[in-house]
Amino acid sequence: MVESIRVFAPATVANVSCGFDVLGFAVNRPGDEVEIRVSPKKGVVIKKITGDQGKLSLDPMQNTAGIAIVKFLEAMKIDKGVEVVLHKKMPLGSGLGSSAASAAAGAFAVNALFGKPLKNEDLVPFALEGERIACGSAHADNVGPALLGGFVLIRSYNPLDIVKIPTPVSLYATIIHPHIEIRTKDARQLLKKQILLEDAVKQWGNVGGLIAGLMQSDYDLIGRSMHDAIVEPIRSLLIPGFADIQKAAVEAGALGSGISGSGPSIFALSSSASAAEAAGESMKNVFKKLNIDSDLYVSKINHKGPQVLD
Amino acid sequence: MVESIRVFAPATVANVSCGFDVLGFAVNRPGDEVEIRVSPKKGVVIKKITGDQGKLSLDPMQNTAGIAIVKFLEAMKIDKGVEVVLHKKMPLGSGLGSSAASAAAGAFAVNALFGKPLKNEDLVPFALEGERIACGSAHADNVGPALLGGFVLIRSYNPLDIVKIPTPVSLYATIIHPHIEIRTKDARQLLKKQILLEDAVKQWGNVGGLIAGLMQSDYDLIGRSMHDAIVEPIRSLLIPGFADIQKAAVEAGALGSGISGSGPSIFALSSSASAAEAAGESMKNVFKKLNIDSDLYVSKINHKGPQVLD
Repeated sequence: MVESIRVFAPATVANVSCGFDVLGFAVNRPGDEVEIRVSPKKGVVIKKITGDQGKLSLDPMQNTAGIAIVKFLEAMKIDKGVEVVLHKKMPLGSGLGSSAASAAAGAFAVNALFGKPLKNEDLVPFALEGERIACGSAHADNVGPALLGGFVLIRSYNPLDIVKIPTPVSLYATIIHPHIEIRTKDARQLLKKQILLEDAVKQWGNVGGLIAGLMQSDYDLIGRSMHDAIVEPIRSLLIPGFADIQKAAVEAGALGSGISGSGPSIFALSSSASAAEAAGESMKNVFKKLNIDSDLYVSKINHKGPQVLD
Repeated sequence: MVESIRVFAPATVANVSCGFDVLGFAVNRPGDEVEIRVSPKKGVVIKKITGDQGKLSLDPMQNTAGIAIVKFLEAMKIDKGVEVVLHKKMPLGSGLGSSAASAAAGAFAVNALFGKPLKNEDLVPFALEGERIACGSAHADNVGPALLGGFVLIRSYNPLDIVKIPTPVSLYATIIHPHIEIRTKDARQLLKKQILLEDAVKQWGNVGGLIAGLMQSDYDLIGRSMHDAIVEPIRSLLIPGFADIQKAAVEAGALGSGISGSGPSIFALSSSASAAEAAGESMKNVFKKLNIDSDLYVSKINHKGPQVLD
């Protein structure tokens, strides 16, 4: 058993246009880091949080990483104390799965600290519990890819059924995070409880197309399937310039583009690094014209999930 | 150019549980046959229809096969006459894509008769037009697999985007057709125009799971994904004993089971011929107890689509 460990867990893009609540993928950066060490004193103590501008609670039961760790220790009947330091290295409320990254980092770190009794996929429920208590809703389309890496499908929530979807070798993600704030709860409250069957049919056609496109490396099909007839038309109202950004990304060579999670970040998928970079520049320029600062990330799909650092 | 030709086009299972209006597959039997010959007299004449118990019109513009042929000749600017004989070799209104099989057979036959100027996928619009005029609605989830064979996804209707989905080598279909009648129009009118977003999310999770399961030959995943939260709960009310039949199929070893198209036929998928046979026997027994006669078909997925006979 190691005495202390530092891990990274990646940001994730949930929904992926047509896959509201069922699709997500991980990227190489940004991500959160968790340092964890065995403590002589029982219980979970969050010693410090950096990078959150004081927004997150040090109470482990109010913190996604803290809850994931507490629930893991309870389930594994590990009667030891741990001290946690959480480094938020990505913006909160950005639509990049910030709380999921912390929860995944916490669950992965505590599992590694105590000799890896569980596989990553078995850590999903603990990380989900962290998200549920801290954020009010538990959506495995962030936690799933944050813990497993790659592109995942949440086939079912009850029982939880997570399916890894192979992706083409040269699939690149562009993410742009404009410096405006949308709270997940607000973004969720905008949604209607009822939708048109007609729109739902379009949506499941596209989900099928996206999965098939990813699995057979058919970039055109991936692009044709990246449409959301249901959630995007509503949530995009909260993002200034959304339609122009989406257009700019595709005109610069991206396969398609959509809202990352509940926004305000916007992602694009591309079949090459150069297209992903070009799409990012074009997207950034649109925000610039609107006088909105933004951060840009370009990355291959992250297939490793969380990693031990040092 | 040949002077006459006789072709077979297969029955198809549309919807496939979770894929309402977007998924369908073809089977080896039953199917319809069309004989077509060049005629000295211009225009399309349906000389005879067998096996329809007089239910179908000899007016080519009231007949799915007739319309498909007329539309093909118009589009290809072929100024010749053809005579058609249609052999209905499957029950009408059974949920097995009877009108689509006739339309596919007609389009395939006339294309073959005039030297195959078009590929099968380019025949889809003609066959769809046949379905639309004769049945009041055009659903490519029957016409698509009837013309292309195999398992297909209709990613989009506008523009039409049909994606072939690879399937495992040992995937078998069982179809049971109970001798009760449901009209497609009635089955469609039962459906609500609005559905719960919550149910829709389950549905697109399952569509994704089914596509992934088929493409990576994961029989368990195929079975877990064969659920329909939206259409089946309503349409199954028209089929006596539906829940028992579904249960019987799975208990006999099938991966899953659902309504074929708009019913009343019920299909199951299995990972072996023996499981498909056993499922069929169990399903037949349930109808027997209800004093309902039924026809049973067991077949591999048909990957050939229509075929020239003789």
